[in-house]
Amino acid sequence: MDMHRKISVQLEGRAYDVHVGVGLLAQMNGLIEAIGAVTSVIVVTDPTVSEHHGATLRAALAAGSSPHLAAAVWLQLPEGEANKTRPNVERIWQAALEHGVDRQTLLIALGGGVVCDLTGFAASTLLRGVRWVAVPTSLLAQVDASVGGKTGFNLEWGKNLVGTFWQPSAVVVDTEVLLSLEARQLNAGLAEVTKYGVAFDESLLDLLEARADEVRLCEPGLMAEIAARCCAIKARVVQQDERDLHVRRLLNFGHTIGHALEQATGYQRYLHGEAVAIGMVWATRLSAEMGLCPPGHVSRLERILSGFSLPIALPSDVKAEKLMAAIASDKKVVAGELSFIFCHGLGNAAVGVLGLDELATRLSAASSARSRY
Amino acid sequence: MDMHRKISVQLEGRAYDVHVGVGLLAQMNGLIEAIGAVTSVIVVTDPTVSEHHGATLRAALAAGSSPHLAAAVWLQLPEGEANKTRPNVERIWQAALEHGVDRQTLLIALGGGVVCDLTGFAASTLLRGVRWVAVPTSLLAQVDASVGGKTGFNLEWGKNLVGTFWQPSAVVVDTEVLLSLEARQLNAGLAEVTKYGVAFDESLLDLLEARADEVRLCEPGLMAEIAARCCAIKARVVQQDERDLHVRRLLNFGHTIGHALEQATGYQRYLHGEAVAIGMVWATRLSAEMGLCPPGHVSRLERILSGFSLPIALPSDVKAEKLMAAIASDKKVVAGELSFIFCHGLGNAAVGVLGLDELATRLSAASSARSRY
Repeated sequence: MDMHRKISVQLEGRAYDVHVGVGLLAQMNGLIEAIGAVTSVIVVTDPTVSEHHGATLRAALAAGSSPHLAAAVWLQLPEGEANKTRPNVERIWQAALEHGVDRQTLLIALGGGVVCDLTGFAASTLLRGVRWVAVPTSLLAQVDASVGGKTGFNLEWGKNLVGTFWQPSAVVVDTEVLLSLEARQLNAGLAEVTKYGVAFDESLLDLLEARADEVRLCEPGLMAEIAARCCAIKARVVQQDERDLHVRRLLNFGHTIGHALEQATGYQRYLHGEAVAIGMVWATRLSAEMGLCPPGHVSRLERILSGFSLPIALPSDVKAEKLMAAIASDKKVVAGELSFIFCHGLGNAAVGVLGLDELATRLSAASSARSRY
Repeated sequence: MDMHRKISVQLEGRAYDVHVGVGLLAQMNGLIEAIGAVTSVIVVTDPTVSEHHGATLRAALAAGSSPHLAAAVWLQLPEGEANKTRPNVERIWQAALEHGVDRQTLLIALGGGVVCDLTGFAASTLLRGVRWVAVPTSLLAQVDASVGGKTGFNLEWGKNLVGTFWQPSAVVVDTEVLLSLEARQLNAGLAEVTKYGVAFDESLLDLLEARADEVRLCEPGLMAEIAARCCAIKARVVQQDERDLHVRRLLNFGHTIGHALEQATGYQRYLHGEAVAIGMVWATRLSAEMGLCPPGHVSRLERILSGFSLPIALPSDVKAEKLMAAIASDKKVVAGELSFIFCHGLGNAAVGVLGLDELATRLSAASSARSRY
């Protein structure tokens, strides 16, 4: 069965499709030609992704009817969140400029969230904006990073502090590529899938529980169904709120603590999804303590995440002060108050306000509780 | 007479006002408060502008009802087009991040085109976009750079190769500040004023001719009238075509050769307006040679520009090949063809297509003609 699901993201004047299916990478020529004429193509990727999927994409581009696809310039960036930096954006700018970028140049991001975010940022700023296509190869990027047009990179002060909103011209989600992922990477992506369940759609949690074994084996057909459901939620949210002013913020469920934890541990210890798993449990427990949801939600969430070998507790060696320092530079802090996403029942997240002082107190309490065990 | 003209730029969901008048800098507190709550303010300027106008803006901010205005952080960037670079964008990012940027931070650009373009770019990318107010202090920035939201910086490959479209929340044009400009800077701005006349409104040329003496003396009331007329044209054009896809391109009249000339001479010899003056004469002569406008237009344009001590001829030591190399990296080149702005009569510019080969031939011919004199 070669099911090709198409989810349309309807933004004013800039609608685009998210293609989800098994084996789509080999059909990239057709998907690119559908978005219009191109004069030059730059493919941005990283060494591991290139090793696994470069040949498939090269063959697809060579099969295109435009000679510009076959003549694509390939650029490899170093891997990992620690490389989501300005110098790597500059490498994309440079590759494009050295190969004669013009307004019909197309950038293709073949990789995980880092490659997608950097390529999207470079596309949004080259000549004040050229087109790009996202071909996410990690589960996390497939279900989250690649849809919605958030681009950016990290600075020493924190993650994604510089970026733009710049929608891709198409997103191509081929769940066959997930088979080459390490289990740890796959599990990190499942944290974001779980997030959609907790924040928007409890039935997604039911599915993750009922078919946990197939999910762990990364069965491409099932993963395509899951990815399509996540992308459909994300598309709906982004259509309502492209610029992250209200409902889109719900996608940040678990991310306040998650981001802080990543930053406090120098982006070395946790994958993004792992940090988000801990952040989701923390946010749900806080919600339960405040009477917003039953305590049973916390344990169900912990069970699901643990089933995917994800961490669920704050590490004992990271002090509350360090997390607070990271949170203080968060984009979601305005005038000493944090816009925080609470769980009001599974499938039902909502934005609330949390004073930085209260958060500090609660994190310290959690921290001393941990040190007592 | 304290006339305060307000030109509204109506862009979907992001309307803003261009305020034009004499002495507006001293009223900045009120103009900023009108755009909404701010939590922190960064003023970006350069040493010369700061020396002339810093105290006035400081006093105005101190008179504001919000303590955040008085507490503004000031950042001085080095002057000149050669400093419109990525490292200076980073200095703005850094200043904002070190002083606790959040989504209600406001950047104020107090300076010429360089300061406005860099500040606008930094604002467009910090936290994926914060607000900024342009307070242009050169005539060129007042009539052109500050309205319309084009931001960016230069790379070794050319000008404005990286940038965004990001509208300011307000533009404040105080023509009193022009009195501190050197004559050469003022004249360079008059080249852009002349451009509006040639491309959109012949009566502006009549005004420049009839009141040339007052213009040269930079009489603030007259300059406010002129700036307001230019800004109104620009606002109308930007409303029709924010992203530079059709009518907005007419604002580039004279700029293809102008930009190339700046680049070929390392941004050292000509001010932007001076290079545009030469470019406009060249474009008008080409138009006349092609029968698009009468040859008399060329001489009238030359007379007006010479009257403001502006250069009107390509320099004999810059080879056609060097200009062509610069043009090849122009954003307006697509697939070997250049979108070029022709003069179809004064006040009536139009976009046409010019092959790079033909342009090279014509530039070489012009170059050998010069070397014969």
